Amino acid sequence: MTARSAWVHGRSGVVTQMHYARQGTITEEMAFVAEREGLPAETIRAELAAGRLVIPANIRHVELEPAAVGAAVTCKINANIGNSALSSGIEDELEKLRICLRYGADTVMDLSTGSQIHVIREAIIRHSPVPVGTVPIYQAVEQVDDVTDLTADGLLQVIEEQAAQGVDYMTVHCGVLREFVPMVQNRLTGIVSRGGALMAQWMLHHQAQNPLYERYDDLLQICRRYDVTLSLGDGLRPGSLHDASDDAQFAELKVLGELAVRAWEQDVQVMIEGPGHVPMEQIADNMRLQQELCHHAPFYVLGPLVTDIAPGYDHITSAIGGAIAGMYGASMICYVTPKEHLGLPNAEDVRQGIIAARIAAHAADVARGLPGARERDDAMSRARYAFDWEQQFALALDPDRAREYRRETLGGNCDTQYCSMCGPKFCSMRLSSELASTALP
Amino acid sequence: MTARSAWVHGRSGVVTQMHYARQGTITEEMAFVAEREGLPAETIRAELAAGRLVIPANIRHVELEPAAVGAAVTCKINANIGNSALSSGIEDELEKLRICLRYGADTVMDLSTGSQIHVIREAIIRHSPVPVGTVPIYQAVEQVDDVTDLTADGLLQVIEEQAAQGVDYMTVHCGVLREFVPMVQNRLTGIVSRGGALMAQWMLHHQAQNPLYERYDDLLQICRRYDVTLSLGDGLRPGSLHDASDDAQFAELKVLGELAVRAWEQDVQVMIEGPGHVPMEQIADNMRLQQELCHHAPFYVLGPLVTDIAPGYDHITSAIGGAIAGMYGASMICYVTPKEHLGLPNAEDVRQGIIAARIAAHAADVARGLPGARERDDAMSRARYAFDWEQQFALALDPDRAREYRRETLGGNCDTQYCSMCGPKFCSMRLSSELASTALP
Repeated sequence: MTARSAWVHGRSGVVTQMHYARQGTITEEMAFVAEREGLPAETIRAELAAGRLVIPANIRHVELEPAAVGAAVTCKINANIGNSALSSGIEDELEKLRICLRYGADTVMDLSTGSQIHVIREAIIRHSPVPVGTVPIYQAVEQVDDVTDLTADGLLQVIEEQAAQGVDYMTVHCGVLREFVPMVQNRLTGIVSRGGALMAQWMLHHQAQNPLYERYDDLLQICRRYDVTLSLGDGLRPGSLHDASDDAQFAELKVLGELAVRAWEQDVQVMIEGPGHVPMEQIADNMRLQQELCHHAPFYVLGPLVTDIAPGYDHITSAIGGAIAGMYGASMICYVTPKEHLGLPNAEDVRQGIIAARIAAHAADVARGLPGARERDDAMSRARYAFDWEQQFALALDPDRAREYRRETLGGNCDTQYCSMCGPKFCSMRLSSELASTALP
Repeated sequence: MTARSAWVHGRSGVVTQMHYARQGTITEEMAFVAEREGLPAETIRAELAAGRLVIPANIRHVELEPAAVGAAVTCKINANIGNSALSSGIEDELEKLRICLRYGADTVMDLSTGSQIHVIREAIIRHSPVPVGTVPIYQAVEQVDDVTDLTADGLLQVIEEQAAQGVDYMTVHCGVLREFVPMVQNRLTGIVSRGGALMAQWMLHHQAQNPLYERYDDLLQICRRYDVTLSLGDGLRPGSLHDASDDAQFAELKVLGELAVRAWEQDVQVMIEGPGHVPMEQIADNMRLQQELCHHAPFYVLGPLVTDIAPGYDHITSAIGGAIAGMYGASMICYVTPKEHLGLPNAEDVRQGIIAARIAAHAADVARGLPGARERDDAMSRARYAFDWEQQFALALDPDRAREYRRETLGGNCDTQYCSMCGPKFCSMRLSSELASTALP
């Protein structure tokens, strides 16, 4: 029996963290994240009650060690795993999960769209101590011959199935309204959200409104029952610099803000998803607009990528945008791997994507002055100045890679007061510490 | 005979680009960079005359295809090559130069500190169509037993030797004044500039002022004779987030501004070097202060790195800082490789460092609205939407890597309207273009 099995045992009635928070109750989950974040539990409770923070924690995910997403806590990062029709099975995905946990993903999303969706998800949830997210429409579409065969009931059935399995948060594209679809006409890259594109296709075929928007109240009831956190997806996010900050994007964002309020009325936790591809100078305004329209619900951004011309390196283009987004208030950054736009990531890509996103998230925490955020940087700087290599490795985001790179150039002789970059005579740190010990007044 | 041999043939008297610009003369070099940048030659001339732009172009570097650095033109990137006492010879360095040219370094600096400094530099200059920079104190120190044996005359002799060889720009640490050294006492990482640390050591030993500051007029005469652009080094730049924006850094920056004015009085071109390690929220102010104190002389930044905890990934931490710095006005970004803080980079590290820096520079050009900067992004987006993979590769910053990644996951079957990331059924671009062609009003 896990620790969390005991916590959720015997809870009944409305079981969402938001409900408890509003009742003034500090749950074990809140206490746990408060301890992790070095904050008073009461802060976590108050932020949760106000909708500014979420703890995605399905009551069926008893393997969970809860984590919080919101402005009051450290910026989190998500890693997407899951197979596609062309690649990967259950063992590959569990290996990716292990990489995610080893290198520090705060949450994982299982975006499987291939075969064995249910069993892969089961394996991931049962092995994951971090919150697990999904995009239920992928499974719903996989179960029908054509997207136009989807029904609202069918979608809600899949959502209920996943909720019962223990999914902690779900991306649903409820804000892609029928009347917004023509707004993408002048875009270069149309609708790049898979869920958004599927919804648009369905609506245009049936000449009907978004079924998840129409049945939003039913959706909320499922979320309320299991405490599934809604991640209101940005189905109309820009997929290129050209398309950023257009009417389609912001029309949807305004609806997401309205849907957040409706979720809170049912004590359902909500995050808002954000772009995408955005030129750097527009990022701050994008963040401010989301905070205003969505009443400070946590913002979960995918990138944003700050240029379109670097396929093979989009973990870097998105780290730049993610860091700036985090500085201006994004609460979770979805990783992007070097394979983005080119293919399904393998284990090494997952590692690279995670570290790039963690750099962005941490740099953002430092920049917005989160208490204690810079302590690890300062400890690293002290270790550098002291030539304490083991301590440097221990403090590194990726200790294995740092050690490997140092070994690669110095061979076995690693206990030196310099590295092969400058050699002993030109090591500024060595020179500088000599100065400090002898000559400084 | 190179094109530039003919240009410089017969020039006499004062031969600096700044001199000609101030006389109202548009040189072949100015015309060449104007063509490259898509700007009127008169704009280049006027910016040069005002000190806001440099064309590092030693009259002895006849192999040069000139490039411009300044706010009016695209943000440039520099790649450091050169050996250290522990690694690499002449063939390795020429291979690195080839990588630099292939992946798009706008300038290279030969930072050799090991053996064969003169011949390695000779080989690099003679093979380089891009401007070559150096840090002369490295050679000067290599020629004496101890840094304290250096003399001002010895330093100027090395500078003259390198100028006569054709070095286009030189980093000199003239602004590290004796009275500033005690200001680093409260730092975590002291003086991390190799040149700055050597200068400090010399000054403390001799209890004397910085010899290059004392002999600055003599230095300017050498630069004026060959048109060597001065890159006024920031010997007191911060080497950790903790040390950023402190009194030592800004005291030196103020002196660099004064030295820039004195250089301009002699028609000598000048860039100012900048940090280093800086938390994101301080970068904009750092850029503004430099522009104010240094009268808009081009700012050449090393990073800045926005966190200290990612050894092995400092090409990413510096791409984040470099992009923000560029957005606020830095004109050249020095690359940082994944081996920074760990060892001397190899060819693959050089490639990674270059692409990361180019991403930062280009994202900055887009963000500051440089005319035409986003055209390549838009072309990429059109190619993506059209599934024109060959065009995507052609537009990519690193076509080889993009092609390799796509092949890796799809095998030979690369002519598909999807990639292995989503597979055919879930390809949003495919769905979206179907929508556009059939159903949109």
